[in-house]
Amino acid sequence: MNETRLRRVLEYMKEEGLEQIVVSATASVYYLTGIWVEPMERMLALYIRSDGECTLYANELFGLTERADLPLRLHKDSDVPTAELAAALRPGTLGVDKAWPSKFLIGVLEARRDVVPVLGSGPVDRARMYKDEEEIASMRSASAINDQVMELALSAVREGVREDELAALVERLYRERGADRSSEGQLVCFGPNGADPHHAPVGAEVRPGDSVTLDIFIPIRRYWCDMTRTVFFRSVSGEGRRVYETVRAANLAAEAAIRPGVPLREVDRAARKVIEDAGYGPYFTHRLGHGCGLECHEPPDNSASSEAVATPGMVFSVEPGIYLPGKLGVRIEDLVLVTEDGCEVLNKVSKDLRIIE
Amino acid sequence: MNETRLRRVLEYMKEEGLEQIVVSATASVYYLTGIWVEPMERMLALYIRSDGECTLYANELFGLTERADLPLRLHKDSDVPTAELAAALRPGTLGVDKAWPSKFLIGVLEARRDVVPVLGSGPVDRARMYKDEEEIASMRSASAINDQVMELALSAVREGVREDELAALVERLYRERGADRSSEGQLVCFGPNGADPHHAPVGAEVRPGDSVTLDIFIPIRRYWCDMTRTVFFRSVSGEGRRVYETVRAANLAAEAAIRPGVPLREVDRAARKVIEDAGYGPYFTHRLGHGCGLECHEPPDNSASSEAVATPGMVFSVEPGIYLPGKLGVRIEDLVLVTEDGCEVLNKVSKDLRIIE
Repeated sequence: MNETRLRRVLEYMKEEGLEQIVVSATASVYYLTGIWVEPMERMLALYIRSDGECTLYANELFGLTERADLPLRLHKDSDVPTAELAAALRPGTLGVDKAWPSKFLIGVLEARRDVVPVLGSGPVDRARMYKDEEEIASMRSASAINDQVMELALSAVREGVREDELAALVERLYRERGADRSSEGQLVCFGPNGADPHHAPVGAEVRPGDSVTLDIFIPIRRYWCDMTRTVFFRSVSGEGRRVYETVRAANLAAEAAIRPGVPLREVDRAARKVIEDAGYGPYFTHRLGHGCGLECHEPPDNSASSEAVATPGMVFSVEPGIYLPGKLGVRIEDLVLVTEDGCEVLNKVSKDLRIIE
Repeated sequence: MNETRLRRVLEYMKEEGLEQIVVSATASVYYLTGIWVEPMERMLALYIRSDGECTLYANELFGLTERADLPLRLHKDSDVPTAELAAALRPGTLGVDKAWPSKFLIGVLEARRDVVPVLGSGPVDRARMYKDEEEIASMRSASAINDQVMELALSAVREGVREDELAALVERLYRERGADRSSEGQLVCFGPNGADPHHAPVGAEVRPGDSVTLDIFIPIRRYWCDMTRTVFFRSVSGEGRRVYETVRAANLAAEAAIRPGVPLREVDRAARKVIEDAGYGPYFTHRLGHGCGLECHEPPDNSASSEAVATPGMVFSVEPGIYLPGKLGVRIEDLVLVTEDGCEVLNKVSKDLRIIE
């Protein structure tokens, strides 16, 4: 157990009035125990009580006996996985990790009518929002690799290149640089395809005048990088240029607005205002960004409805975009780290308008 | 909507006394609607009522407007995702998909104190257990590709080869043959590493006398293949040979036991008895197998505690193993399809003891 991190979680449990929580997310269990398990359909549940007692309930197939330095309760595939955990719970409120599969929660509720589930990810998610020195070093290093991969991928944009080819190249470049795994979700969009912010790469070939958006992300030694750049192939229309410069200004305005004490909804507002003032408000269809760390998307939320306030140690994305159906899409995304007096932009790839010849 | 599949789901809902269910698994939603969405932390929920009314609740970022041929209720990132769904529910029992993230279930329960959640994956999971002709064709074709990949990977076992190299080769061979994505979880284990059934490949080099286990799996056009073979490098010890032949006999005994009407726990028993009779009972530490289809692990369970009975159209794995700590591991796995009078083994790679020179 990482005792420093556990102490912070216990403080937040106290603040939130939670006497007991179940932590199930792979990344959260790793954050506290140093044990990385992807349980698939099996059960992994770290039970934490407000008095600091921790027990890890796990399927024996995870092979944790030698690796765990906390009390371990193992079950087999043929056992009811929640039985021991349910029996150990105190009556009353139980904080439950947000992505715990419902089958386990239902199993607990059927065994314990005296337990009331509430969303209980807060304490660990809040602790994880504030990266410690070790985590910051990991994130800087992952984003430095992402900068290299982005530059190499942009250099590979040429006549006839296909979206799926660029996506495969990005994957290969990541693998060669020690990525933990494939992500297979790299977003590469040409021209009108870029108007769907989540467009998956297909066989489309780049055409002169196309916007070329690369949104690329991967975990490297457990911590994620995530960046988007948009360039143009051969030429850019007047509208393309206007859209690009608007998105760039929105990205820069948001990053300039970040300093400790500023609510993230105001950071979202700073970007959105630039886009609205340019007349493209309806075409910026998503939130400004998301926290990033052991998971690609994690707290804090960086949106118009975010409750978070910028605080040193937070890392999140700033990724305004404008999507014109049938025409093009432009998005520019950095990861930023909140510092004592502003923010450090972890991505260094230029955001100047770039036309690839 | 696939009306034939929906009708079957409605029949099972009636049998199970479920008036309303929430289907959230990517594969289950695809099975019924033909729409494949991986929602990550966002909400995708197909609400089905016993009268056949279906509504898909989805985040607008999934881009479903053009693709859905059923009523669609969209929410934005800034909305409470469960609000509309919770309002639409009938009071009483709600069947909930087993892996629905707890945050959504808790959101529903807090909005609707008159709703009682129960495990509600049954109707769709049961329908999905019986593959229709289209699905069987897809699974045969995926396993035929897996046979090719296994033969090529086994041919690559030679002096100095490392576990992670073989795993990367398998991934490349899959990509070249049209796999939907990377799996990155390929299991390649040499010698003592094979004694951990879930050992992840590391830099270990193969040594003479090692058992070499390849457990390889991937989705190809949405349907999974999954096979394990174990060979020996250069030589095999007397014990290695005894273990191998025991596992092979267990695999064959289980496959011979499969025919319509036989409980899967008896199929598990048939394999386990062979291993117990040979004195290795304590070293067969997992269930015999798992259903396979749109997900690598899906119903039916093929274990000592399975409630399932072999029925034509079922596809599941038969994968007995013996794991001797510090020494070696042997596992032999096929996917099998239950037919009218027995089973069709989808994997054709030989199970004869093979020593790679």
